Amino acid sequence: MPNPLAGRDIVAINDLSQAEIRLILTHAARFEHWCQEEPKLDLLRDYILATLFYEPSTRTRLSFETAMHRLGGDVISVADARLTSSAVKGESIADTARTIATYADVIVQRHPQPGSARQAADAIDIPVINAGDGAGEHPTQALLDLYTVQRERGQLDGLRIGLAGDLKHGRTVHSLARALAHWDVALTLISPPALAMPAEITGELRQRGLAPQETADLEAAMPACDVLYVTRIQRERFADPAEYERLRGSYVVNRALIERTNPDITVMHPLPRVDEIATDVDALPGAAYFRQAANGVWVRMALLTLVMDKQLQEIWR
Amino acid sequence: MPNPLAGRDIVAINDLSQAEIRLILTHAARFEHWCQEEPKLDLLRDYILATLFYEPSTRTRLSFETAMHRLGGDVISVADARLTSSAVKGESIADTARTIATYADVIVQRHPQPGSARQAADAIDIPVINAGDGAGEHPTQALLDLYTVQRERGQLDGLRIGLAGDLKHGRTVHSLARALAHWDVALTLISPPALAMPAEITGELRQRGLAPQETADLEAAMPACDVLYVTRIQRERFADPAEYERLRGSYVVNRALIERTNPDITVMHPLPRVDEIATDVDALPGAAYFRQAANGVWVRMALLTLVMDKQLQEIWR
Amino acid sequence: MPNPLAGRDIVAINDLSQAEIRLILTHAARFEHWCQEEPKLDLLRDYILATLFYEPSTRTRLSFETAMHRLGGDVISVADARLTSSAVKGESIADTARTIATYADVIVQRHPQPGSARQAADAIDIPVINAGDGAGEHPTQALLDLYTVQRERGQLDGLRIGLAGDLKHGRTVHSLARALAHWDVALTLISPPALAMPAEITGELRQRGLAPQETADLEAAMPACDVLYVTRIQRERFADPAEYERLRGSYVVNRALIERTNPDITVMHPLPRVDEIATDVDALPGAAYFRQAANGVWVRMALLTLVMDKQLQEIWR
Repeated sequence: MPNPLAGRDIVAINDLSQAEIRLILTHAARFEHWCQEEPKLDLLRDYILATLFYEPSTRTRLSFETAMHRLGGDVISVADARLTSSAVKGESIADTARTIATYADVIVQRHPQPGSARQAADAIDIPVINAGDGAGEHPTQALLDLYTVQRERGQLDGLRIGLAGDLKHGRTVHSLARALAHWDVALTLISPPALAMPAEITGELRQRGLAPQETADLEAAMPACDVLYVTRIQRERFADPAEYERLRGSYVVNRALIERTNPDITVMHPLPRVDEIATDVDALPGAAYFRQAANGVWVRMALLTLVMDKQLQEIWR
Repeated sequence: MPNPLAGRDIVAINDLSQAEIRLILTHAARFEHWCQEEPKLDLLRDYILATLFYEPSTRTRLSFETAMHRLGGDVISVADARLTSSAVKGESIADTARTIATYADVIVQRHPQPGSARQAADAIDIPVINAGDGAGEHPTQALLDLYTVQRERGQLDGLRIGLAGDLKHGRTVHSLARALAHWDVALTLISPPALAMPAEITGELRQRGLAPQETADLEAAMPACDVLYVTRIQRERFADPAEYERLRGSYVVNRALIERTNPDITVMHPLPRVDEIATDVDALPGAAYFRQAANGVWVRMALLTLVMDKQLQEIWR
Repeated sequence: MPNPLAGRDIVAINDLSQAEIRLILTHAARFEHWCQEEPKLDLLRDYILATLFYEPSTRTRLSFETAMHRLGGDVISVADARLTSSAVKGESIADTARTIATYADVIVQRHPQPGSARQAADAIDIPVINAGDGAGEHPTQALLDLYTVQRERGQLDGLRIGLAGDLKHGRTVHSLARALAHWDVALTLISPPALAMPAEITGELRQRGLAPQETADLEAAMPACDVLYVTRIQRERFADPAEYERLRGSYVVNRALIERTNPDITVMHPLPRVDEIATDVDALPGAAYFRQAANGVWVRMALLTLVMDKQLQEIWR
């Protein structure tokens, strides 16, 4: 079977078909299994990854760099491109990408401006992987989230999944909802009305046959969720601070809430968490958020090898 | 033949004889050729490069780090030494270099202060490569520029080369002009009178037999240039903003200008460019500036192996 | 013999017994010897080191990264975690460590807050090495200092060691004094009374049988010291600037002072030095501070391999 992801950019989750997502998840599972035996492979020995972060992100950058190292490749990195002279001097995203493409074989880019990843991808021939473009997309987060749901619950089809918190501004939940629409899941959107999922996205989900429930009541929604994906509600999103103070408490997940409503629930979070998940949840078997972070490495190993078109079939035999 | 660059510092372009520059260019060409087949070599497997940047420079730093990775070596890096405690605490350039020299086998240093590279080089025994010392020198840029001219036009002797833009402040054009003086080229210096090449450098060029033409008229100069090397004119160099606005338009290279005056011209730029070369030039066959960036890797591979004295003769056989 | 450091955290110097410190120093000496022949080993080829610096420290970070590279391992790095979004967003030290632990096999952490290294170590299963926690500890500096004393003077027992400068705030001298208490040394504490070693530490030293002499007179103390360990007196420690100006001169070590009082003395400094050791000392045979920096690599190679539990016995045979 030819590899449909060879040479591809990963800019938005909707660029990927269900079959392509399945391929990524399958390879990620194999890497997870394989690395128990052999933590360092030689697959991308001849390749250089450039991580180009116009805003810093420890988690995403290190996860990609770890993936590349475990594949035997090298890494060049700009951890905070805001500080570099080229960006300060006004170089375009396209020009920077064209230059970095003369050094590296694949670029992972984070930039605060929506559409920036597409600009880079359109400018160059080597693969560009979007590691977040402002309010836009963060497709590799959605892929590792999917992988985690499947890994924790054994399947995707048939699951009941709740997305909770700030569903308006979080690109993570936008990309994840779109990814989930490939499967037969029951989706519940749990947020204060002012932070509801944008109509553009719920419309898209409905059109694709996934009709989400919407509610503001986290506690009431929990019994009907197999998986709860929590995101943070930020003070700065509220014009009225009193409104924020009134709301925040009702979106905190703690051990008592879980034991009262649904002890078997799987709790996920893109991290960093502040206080929206109490630390007394960490020891519960369903607390999956640090396993979720670990899964990022397997998913990114899969992505890097697939876009670089390494003949994985040969290894997995 | 013994390697004349073994253990040498590369601080200023004038430290290199023509024979030494030729040696670097020859090895760079071999690396370019070799890496098509074998993108990762093992030549510097046992060596560590330290990139020590007191001011950030994505391009130069990543180019050196890519070169080192392609040679199989390791890299330690300070991407922005301004922020580090040692520099803040007032450690001297010499002391920092002495310390880093206990970790690494070669140091690439950028520092805003002219003469800083020489200070580091004088303090330590391992090779120091100057990656820019303020208004001083940037010799590896000059070397990759030379390599690009030769690569694009097949030769250096006999060429007509124009340097355009801010020739007063740009260390890049200073180092390049000095490097070109080893060859039989016709040099045209194209700039507003207020941004002309310093008399110290034109005097040196004349003494070395390269009598440059000077003009303020870019359009008139273009038909007589095989290669046009463009640099940016910065607003902050002008006391009178109106003077800047009047001038900037006449130093913009666009497709119409090229097609009108010299369609065969090779256009180079040290990058980043802002608007001094219009993006409609990018698709022209003579637009060499991104190939120029790529050439930096081959030239730096050559430099690193030569100063580390790897027996390249054996490989090239 | 089982390796007593396998899987251990290195948070405070007092966590290590004398036998454990001896083990580290012995392995460091072997690495120093070995690397003359073989500068790059393959011992930690399958491992990833994360350097997580919440405040920048060129010296300590690069020394660890060099050690890891010379052992064949990979490195992921956050050179300045203050700037990253996770810390800014208020993620706890424990959560960041838990996440990084899903990428790396060992974490080296620097953080301005005392106790932060213990927090990270308690949160995760992989080894955490404290690279400085504010006014707390910096145990690997103490180990490389010990190694240097032994290397320069051939022994530890029987030596007369002076610690000079700011003994109140310097975590380096605190950790070193505690480490020295395992040996039969004569310790002289040389500082202005306002910057004396805290009573808590001198009390601990006395209890452990090491009764330090205290004096404010550097010149008078020097003849009775085999080793002088100099630290800087910082202006900002003094309420009265005139007091600082009066004192600083009497804590400057220069060539004349050494030749007048004790030409055989070994001079050490954790670096960076500013003017507390004059540069005319650098050429003296007893000026050990840059060799001391170099020794950091051997000590850290020893530590990394020991906590990762590589079977060094096999190599050293």
